[in-house]
Amino acid sequence: MTTAKQDPIQGGKRAAIIGGGVIGASWAALFLANGLKVIISDPDPAIETKVKATIETAIPSLAAMGYDTADLTANLSFGSDTASAVADADIVQECGPERLDFKRSLWKLVEEAAPKDALLCSSSSTIPASVQSDQMTDKARLIIGHPFNPPHLMPLVEIVPTLATDPAVTAKALEFYQSVGKVPREIRKEVTGFVANRLQAAIFRESVYLVSEGVVELDELDDIMTNSLGIRWATSGPFLSFHLGGGAGGLRHFLEQFGPPTEASWKVLGQPKLDEATKALLIAQVDATYGKSAFKDLAETRDAKEIAVINGLAGIDRASHEG
Amino acid sequence: MTTAKQDPIQGGKRAAIIGGGVIGASWAALFLANGLKVIISDPDPAIETKVKATIETAIPSLAAMGYDTADLTANLSFGSDTASAVADADIVQECGPERLDFKRSLWKLVEEAAPKDALLCSSSSTIPASVQSDQMTDKARLIIGHPFNPPHLMPLVEIVPTLATDPAVTAKALEFYQSVGKVPREIRKEVTGFVANRLQAAIFRESVYLVSEGVVELDELDDIMTNSLGIRWATSGPFLSFHLGGGAGGLRHFLEQFGPPTEASWKVLGQPKLDEATKALLIAQVDATYGKSAFKDLAETRDAKEIAVINGLAGIDRASHEG
Repeated sequence: MTTAKQDPIQGGKRAAIIGGGVIGASWAALFLANGLKVIISDPDPAIETKVKATIETAIPSLAAMGYDTADLTANLSFGSDTASAVADADIVQECGPERLDFKRSLWKLVEEAAPKDALLCSSSSTIPASVQSDQMTDKARLIIGHPFNPPHLMPLVEIVPTLATDPAVTAKALEFYQSVGKVPREIRKEVTGFVANRLQAAIFRESVYLVSEGVVELDELDDIMTNSLGIRWATSGPFLSFHLGGGAGGLRHFLEQFGPPTEASWKVLGQPKLDEATKALLIAQVDATYGKSAFKDLAETRDAKEIAVINGLAGIDRASHEG
Repeated sequence: MTTAKQDPIQGGKRAAIIGGGVIGASWAALFLANGLKVIISDPDPAIETKVKATIETAIPSLAAMGYDTADLTANLSFGSDTASAVADADIVQECGPERLDFKRSLWKLVEEAAPKDALLCSSSSTIPASVQSDQMTDKARLIIGHPFNPPHLMPLVEIVPTLATDPAVTAKALEFYQSVGKVPREIRKEVTGFVANRLQAAIFRESVYLVSEGVVELDELDDIMTNSLGIRWATSGPFLSFHLGGGAGGLRHFLEQFGPPTEASWKVLGQPKLDEATKALLIAQVDATYGKSAFKDLAETRDAKEIAVINGLAGIDRASHEG
């Protein structure tokens, strides 16, 4: 068991990132911007070029969020030997392939090669830590630190301990991700999809249903979302929204007055299939709308808007804390 | 039948609002800010005081969105006689009680009292126009113009014609709401809840499930939403998000690669009940979190954040149109 007496990780510490794909490189950009030394372990001989290209695309976002991005990669190094890469790590952030055999072997190796007090986090959204830790001697050390893509931009990190995870590890993970500017939240049960991806699945299911029924076309549904619920949910989650929707009586009043119609509204939701006909319909509609724009332009507009939202909200948070 | 040769409604035209509750007064504030003359018809003898108080609370938001709010109520009048109120209206916006008998009688009266080319819109989210128009001679005239609350702030208006609605009326409604700064979208079938409220129901069902299962507490779920999906959906709806998530291959590639796991993710979603035990759990958690803050403070922070998001996004839209 690890102890509760571990120091929080701060800037100047060392992060080892396992896997330099899009998620790993995005974590690297964020950690570097926060003053950490980063080593990326990846067997790909071309990994340095790939990672630096990904970091390059993250720089405008990081700069827009107020980070100093000059010489961002000065503290970045690479290595193909995992044991050496993690040998003096304060945190190991796993971003490897979503394969169980890979992750099981990795943690067995990392557990032996990394310092005893290193924080061991997997970015996985699909393989829970209780399964990944199968071959570890001390299963108390492993935890999920699942980012919302892209990690350098989106605030959320889902922290998912197992039943075996030491509570001190959970506390340390929460503290670490907060120290690099993220908003970590603990998920108390290892449910499939954790929380954010389940909420996303709920929306996508109903969205596919409404388009497949011809109620709206796919870009119209997107417009409906971005011009109503998206604005609401960027500022207040579903419970706070209904708490305020209940007026001075709050959620209590809302549930008393609208409980039965709310429950009834759940019963009419659709149960679509993602069969060939549905996929063909969605692809035809996407070709006729977003397909006309270059991927790069759409992605750049999305990123710019996400930063505008994040910075706009941060401004209000600062004002309300100072006020 | 109305004809397709109606002029679009612009500033300087006359709006009659039926019902001066929160929705009616919010519509009034928006219409006045856009230069319309507004008359509110409501039997409540104290309606003028109530409406002006609601408009007062809308002024900071309207000003922050760039509207001139000096003398906002100069073109606002009141009347308790519906026939007189609609007699020279270019648009009638119904915001009365959600009672079928009220709406049926209203439209029968309005149809006879309003100009033949007046646009007749109901704000209702629960009683479709096909049911409201039951006693009208010309059912082609009625359409739903359902705002997302609050109407003066949220861009979306769901335009829901019936099978009998004249397409020229639909076109005119789309044009009118756009002329007062809204983002109207046509809903092509009168499904229960239209689109936005169905999407909201899908999220709330899964949210209640996750809290009732003890996966997270209610304020933590809200934080997860506002720090991930909310930011994403304020900027890109679910289809554009997955189109971009598919990389250069777009939604086609996404569906090919992730179709089966996506369909599987729908199957694990919860089916909670909103029974007394669940309601008690939610109320206990809301009391322990949001209940500690004053309603007014929470609502003001939400409004300020919504404006920050709306204005932030508008800035990017302007830049990308100019760029």
